[in-house]
Amino acid sequence: MAKNQKLKIIPLGGLNEIGKNMTAFEFGGDIIVLDCGIAFPDDDMPGIDMVIPDISYLIKNQSKVRAIVLTHGHEDHIGAIPYFLKEINVPIYGSRLTLGLVEIKLKEHNLLSKTKLHRVRAGDTAKIGAFRVEFIRTNHSIPDAMALAIHTPIGTIVHTGDFKVDCTPIEGQMIDLAKFGELGKNGVLALLSESTNVERPGYTMSESTVGDSFDNIFRNHTDQRIIVATFASNVHRVQQIINSAYRFGRRVAFSGRSMESVAEVAMQLGYMTVPDNVIISIDDIKKYRPNQLVIITTGSQGETMSALTRMAFSDHKKVEINRGDLVIVSATPIPGNEKPISNVINELFKKGAEVIYKSLENIHVSGHACQEELKLILALTKPKYFIPVHGEFRHLRQHALLAEKMGIPSKNIIVGDVGKVIELGPNSCKIGGTVPSGIVLVDGLGVGDVGNIVLRDRKHLAEDGIIIVVVTMSKNTGAILSGPDVISRGFVYVRESEDLMEEAKAIALSSLERSAQRHQTDWASLKGGLKSSLSDYLYSKTKRKPMILPIIMEIE
Amino acid sequence: MAKNQKLKIIPLGGLNEIGKNMTAFEFGGDIIVLDCGIAFPDDDMPGIDMVIPDISYLIKNQSKVRAIVLTHGHEDHIGAIPYFLKEINVPIYGSRLTLGLVEIKLKEHNLLSKTKLHRVRAGDTAKIGAFRVEFIRTNHSIPDAMALAIHTPIGTIVHTGDFKVDCTPIEGQMIDLAKFGELGKNGVLALLSESTNVERPGYTMSESTVGDSFDNIFRNHTDQRIIVATFASNVHRVQQIINSAYRFGRRVAFSGRSMESVAEVAMQLGYMTVPDNVIISIDDIKKYRPNQLVIITTGSQGETMSALTRMAFSDHKKVEINRGDLVIVSATPIPGNEKPISNVINELFKKGAEVIYKSLENIHVSGHACQEELKLILALTKPKYFIPVHGEFRHLRQHALLAEKMGIPSKNIIVGDVGKVIELGPNSCKIGGTVPSGIVLVDGLGVGDVGNIVLRDRKHLAEDGIIIVVVTMSKNTGAILSGPDVISRGFVYVRESEDLMEEAKAIALSSLERSAQRHQTDWASLKGGLKSSLSDYLYSKTKRKPMILPIIMEIE
Repeated sequence: MAKNQKLKIIPLGGLNEIGKNMTAFEFGGDIIVLDCGIAFPDDDMPGIDMVIPDISYLIKNQSKVRAIVLTHGHEDHIGAIPYFLKEINVPIYGSRLTLGLVEIKLKEHNLLSKTKLHRVRAGDTAKIGAFRVEFIRTNHSIPDAMALAIHTPIGTIVHTGDFKVDCTPIEGQMIDLAKFGELGKNGVLALLSESTNVERPGYTMSESTVGDSFDNIFRNHTDQRIIVATFASNVHRVQQIINSAYRFGRRVAFSGRSMESVAEVAMQLGYMTVPDNVIISIDDIKKYRPNQLVIITTGSQGETMSALTRMAFSDHKKVEINRGDLVIVSATPIPGNEKPISNVINELFKKGAEVIYKSLENIHVSGHACQEELKLILALTKPKYFIPVHGEFRHLRQHALLAEKMGIPSKNIIVGDVGKVIELGPNSCKIGGTVPSGIVLVDGLGVGDVGNIVLRDRKHLAEDGIIIVVVTMSKNTGAILSGPDVISRGFVYVRESEDLMEEAKAIALSSLERSAQRHQTDWASLKGGLKSSLSDYLYSKTKRKPMILPIIMEIE
Repeated sequence: MAKNQKLKIIPLGGLNEIGKNMTAFEFGGDIIVLDCGIAFPDDDMPGIDMVIPDISYLIKNQSKVRAIVLTHGHEDHIGAIPYFLKEINVPIYGSRLTLGLVEIKLKEHNLLSKTKLHRVRAGDTAKIGAFRVEFIRTNHSIPDAMALAIHTPIGTIVHTGDFKVDCTPIEGQMIDLAKFGELGKNGVLALLSESTNVERPGYTMSESTVGDSFDNIFRNHTDQRIIVATFASNVHRVQQIINSAYRFGRRVAFSGRSMESVAEVAMQLGYMTVPDNVIISIDDIKKYRPNQLVIITTGSQGETMSALTRMAFSDHKKVEINRGDLVIVSATPIPGNEKPISNVINELFKKGAEVIYKSLENIHVSGHACQEELKLILALTKPKYFIPVHGEFRHLRQHALLAEKMGIPSKNIIVGDVGKVIELGPNSCKIGGTVPSGIVLVDGLGVGDVGNIVLRDRKHLAEDGIIIVVVTMSKNTGAILSGPDVISRGFVYVRESEDLMEEAKAIALSSLERSAQRHQTDWASLKGGLKSSLSDYLYSKTKRKPMILPIIMEIE
């Protein structure tokens, strides 16, 4: 009976975009939600702190939602959990490190005691509603990352999560390729595989190659203080920096809130092994000579408020960049961050620091599979249907082409989209209908109260500023009792444009007088007249189109 | 006597920044200005159209200014000329193509008849005041680029302009290395050399390698329409696309204003050679089958209003992207443009086009010298003093290190800055004093009327929007006659936040009442009270800090 039912795969984020990864799997009366991430705001979302998926479909069907299942602990996979739980409180399944990082968030949002967390290990299987979810070890730029085999009544779905194939991982073991092969042998109905690096041929280098580079750099820079910026969540990277520091007799201090909190969790849970007396407090760095120190810091993306940016711009309370410091930026810029990180590097150089930042120096490797690794997973799982995920459209499209080359018929490949339901049967796979989906903007405490209209106004205000015209009028006679006054912000520097503003005032007055002559007394047409006459005048003088806001105060 | 005088080299743009290249050379009563470019606005300059150098030092000394001398016709070297000429009208020296592109600008600004243009060829020498300026052929991503040897009474200065060493250029000849050698033999007092690609080891590939790639692509895509996006000013790139088109029996149409106008100038002046009947109007593309067509378009940087962006987003009047079109993006993103161009590529893929855009495909080469080429120029000119130019601080610093490795003592290397005067004597080179310098913002018709305060307001408005509180009060009694009204833009979606706005109004009213109780009747303290009480309230509710603008209308 269940065999006739369809499995619905409902992407709610992560397709045709970078970030806010979330996919719902629905079968009969059961839904599980795979990952629950945020995206970072685009340039055209001024003031927005983060972007989370629209989960109104899940809220509507919340009686069916059984659990959130997590692949790994990156923000674009776990960041939206507090917002999700405030709407739908369900248990969360994830590896120990992943849940350790989730706990930090739950504490901040006062949700820890209310939330049921199921810690799983690679190889574990959890029965959740109609689904049997099997956790499979992978490698990634954060430890304890998992792929999932979701066994359903109509067949097995494999979701890779984010992964790479690292044959020489730093701690723990390499990706469980044998398990992928076993699943393939037993039959995989559909594979959902990540597409981040599909444009890159070959293999992603092993994380351990970075350790060799650190050793070389530490060996050749014995006189200088060393500062390394990297992602806080890249626990193995941080481990390798600590290893090099220990090898060359240096102490390590952490800087940056997320660096400190992630390191604490990683050490507590045993994902990071640190010899005694190596870690010191950032408050104690003055007790050591520069060549006895390594500072591991956030800010590898040039984020405005990050520790490295503060150091570069002399705004860090505890670390001052000195001539001769060696700064290593152990990361590559995420698209869009090129300029901020470049600014930080320039400032570091200006302070006399030596900066190592080129990918050429082997101080960073990606956490995502390149083409040969992606092909390996396709070859091992031999899926009937293939759904590329985790990427912009061009990545998904290229991944589809790669799968075609691997022998999957193009009719069995679905390049999906957020909100488009993929209906999967034992012998069919097609897009069937849509569900509400999209972005919800988080700004300060507001979740969803900034939408397109507010953003459009913000962009308009940013481009050309605002002109406010205020006039107080008699409600009875329509006579002008005060004003019109013209006030501007973000338009021109008023002190140097007095004539322009005076003239604007005169234009406003004559617009009101014209309306009076025409016996237009309703406020709407008065405002319309003010708006268009001022807009025309200002455009003719400046070729700018500020927002014009007429305000009429009325007195009985 | 002149021998005791110092040569002042005054960088007014292009150091510690990308763009708005301009350097003044002053000796005794004579100043020549080398290049006159614009920069593109940063992300933190909303609404700004372009950035030009502050030339107030030159305006103050305009009786000394003899000429503008141009190295080549890129916007970051010629774009500010109309603004400069409106302040200081002097003759302009440049190569034929460079001045052909300058003429387009002068026509637009109605300056053509008022401006004296001196066309020079490689090998020419011009006597300008105390200077003898020699023009030297180089290679770059625009034809007719020149380096300059500026012969002064105290010695010879070499300025490379933007250059690469291309041994197999498309048209014209390769860079005149022999001349650099001859100058070096006769003694070069100082070398100013560009630093754009100093972080890249090796050599920049020849432009002709791109032609081979085009031929290969055209050969393998005989069924599809081909659309190529590149820089309009890269005349040799456009020539090579036309060559491939001709070879494979296709017609060529241009799309984009700058593409059309630059191609016209280049053809008129003989920098582009096109067989008869190859170029067709974009209006006529419907008369040809897709596989008979190549469209060469602007938009390789994903610029919002460019032709390729319009095509991608179905907003182009004459070109619609169809399934099967082949789009080649023959450029690499300028830092900061990664996201917009990525968006365009995604849209093209969504429309079913095939897109070739990776640098891997050899469809683009840089126009700037890499390390080995930079070393070649250092080796040939053997300068006494070295001043790296045309780059951010990190580029200048790396170029300085490169020069040190080439044997120039570090005390003879000056990493300068905009506005810092480099004083050069036969045996001395130091920074001596500063002149006014910086950026002037162009917004619509306004030049310089948007400054830091306006930008700060624009950024504030963009981040959190604006709250306007208006109240009409009696001037005599201080009684509230109308209001207070609270109006917001860019803050929250008001329809869904009515309670918040109502409460804000109540807060405003009680603030005014408190002021009245304290007999605070001056408008300034009333406004201060409104601002702080509303600001506190809104922050506590939203964690946002909108701009708060209190307006008091008074009635006698």
